[in-house]
Amino acid sequence: MNITVLSGGVGGARFTRGLLALLRERLPDGAGGTTAHVTVVANTGDDLWLHGVRVCPDLDTLLYTLGDAVHEEQGWGRRDESRRVSDDLAAYGLGWEWFTLGDLDLATHLARTELLRRGLPLSAVVERLAQRWRPGVRLLPMTDHEVETHVRTADGLLHFEEWWVRHRAAVPALGFEQVGLAGSSPAPGVLDAIAGADVVVVPPSNPVVSVGTILAVPGVGDALRTTTARVVGVSPVVGGAPVRGMADACLAAIGVETSALAVARHYGRRAAGGVLDAWLVDTADADAVAPLRAEGWDVAAAGTLMHDVPTTAGIAARALALVGLTP
Amino acid sequence: MNITVLSGGVGGARFTRGLLALLRERLPDGAGGTTAHVTVVANTGDDLWLHGVRVCPDLDTLLYTLGDAVHEEQGWGRRDESRRVSDDLAAYGLGWEWFTLGDLDLATHLARTELLRRGLPLSAVVERLAQRWRPGVRLLPMTDHEVETHVRTADGLLHFEEWWVRHRAAVPALGFEQVGLAGSSPAPGVLDAIAGADVVVVPPSNPVVSVGTILAVPGVGDALRTTTARVVGVSPVVGGAPVRGMADACLAAIGVETSALAVARHYGRRAAGGVLDAWLVDTADADAVAPLRAEGWDVAAAGTLMHDVPTTAGIAARALALVGLTP
Repeated sequence: MNITVLSGGVGGARFTRGLLALLRERLPDGAGGTTAHVTVVANTGDDLWLHGVRVCPDLDTLLYTLGDAVHEEQGWGRRDESRRVSDDLAAYGLGWEWFTLGDLDLATHLARTELLRRGLPLSAVVERLAQRWRPGVRLLPMTDHEVETHVRTADGLLHFEEWWVRHRAAVPALGFEQVGLAGSSPAPGVLDAIAGADVVVVPPSNPVVSVGTILAVPGVGDALRTTTARVVGVSPVVGGAPVRGMADACLAAIGVETSALAVARHYGRRAAGGVLDAWLVDTADADAVAPLRAEGWDVAAAGTLMHDVPTTAGIAARALALVGLTP
Repeated sequence: MNITVLSGGVGGARFTRGLLALLRERLPDGAGGTTAHVTVVANTGDDLWLHGVRVCPDLDTLLYTLGDAVHEEQGWGRRDESRRVSDDLAAYGLGWEWFTLGDLDLATHLARTELLRRGLPLSAVVERLAQRWRPGVRLLPMTDHEVETHVRTADGLLHFEEWWVRHRAAVPALGFEQVGLAGSSPAPGVLDAIAGADVVVVPPSNPVVSVGTILAVPGVGDALRTTTARVVGVSPVVGGAPVRGMADACLAAIGVETSALAVARHYGRRAAGGVLDAWLVDTADADAVAPLRAEGWDVAAAGTLMHDVPTTAGIAARALALVGLTP
């Protein structure tokens, strides 16, 4: 069984961890793993060069979460993190002090930057870093090209991280400009992972700046529209608010209501030119089921809050069941 | 009074600290500084890109030593240093684990790399970093070009740092290859600092891979030969051995005996086409005084071991006195 996940950071990483727990239980390989093959295509649109090193927030959240090293409460970064370097770095007054650069996290950034300097494409770098973390999935960046998301505001352009981390998305966004995205191409393996999957999952990641960015890599949207896999999404919006993060501010910027119903329609049904076949909403949004079903969606309501790994495994099972898969 | 120092790392930094102490005492500016102007031209031939960041060992040793932040016993690196990042980085297995990258030191490397990425030449980067450390001197890299020293051995080329730090210079060196040196040019201010000085001091730094590298930047040797300043050196060899480091291995590689006498002759008298006018040797090498004086050198013997700052101030005073300067 081949499953491909299109993931942002925390939401996608937690979902994938639950999915893996499910697969290890239902399709064990006898060695603690699973016979299923999971490929995760990660958003890299939030990546940035900071203080000379390349930072890839979503890829690292995936590595740490799946590699059992994540700061659990925070959802990103390393457990037992410290800030010795960044506290000292602040004395140089170069700015961006609001962007956390943990010491352990920096080790990853340094390793990545070293490998990039050696000439490796990001996908090969990720493969090398994954040798340490053994995430139990094939982890691919959406592209080997550098893509940088900027946010249009009334005061001008902000780097996505400046808007997201520094301003907590409180400055109204008028839109997003993703430098390099239109000229990018999918990283090696990405299109095959979509075309050759039994099911593609869109986890509860930010539909605009995470999944939306992956879908905008030239070729990825078409791959989703033409794959023989079935494609199921889990709503990142519960009861009219994002479960985590400021996805509402992103949705507002592109004129989409923050509701499970509106996000489903934003992704669209494949039969109608969109990218999804099925949509799992939270029980809080059960009223979205009837209208979506009337439109032809495979849709169900279930508890979708990822409290812990077993709960998340159950959510993954519900999502897979929606497209007829019961591993 | 304008004094220019051509410095390597620890030896040059400690000497300069003593020189500054002398000048603050003899030529006080009333605000804790000195009315004398000291320019330090630092060797950058040991610099390297490591794990994506630019490391400049001698420049940093100068900043930390003159900025009262150096690890005193070690002679380089920061006081109260830790290795949280590098211990974690080792888990990626990228090599060079023997090269210490302290957490606080990394903050400097990150700041420097950030500024280089912004397009600043190294000299402007150093000026910016010096705003934090207030070294009390004008600190200039010998060049804004990247120069990288490699060591020829029977087993092939090693990066200088690999030979020096990892192998402690125990692998016999057959010579040095300094990539980029012949095509480099002095950083802005370097030639003027030599031409406009009252005295140029060559402190007890490595005569081959520190001072020798600075002298090999096209134009620097000629500037020394033609300046109206007097040029005085302090022997880095005491009693037939380097005071610190493995300068003997470097001298052997270029066929120069490890003695105060031989190093003086290696630099050469300006009147005879060399770069020095005067040479201060240790009392342990008093027997070098007579032959050098016979050759026309201004030469004296004195205690030259830089035990502490007051002692080093005294050594600086002796060196300046040799060229007729008594600040």
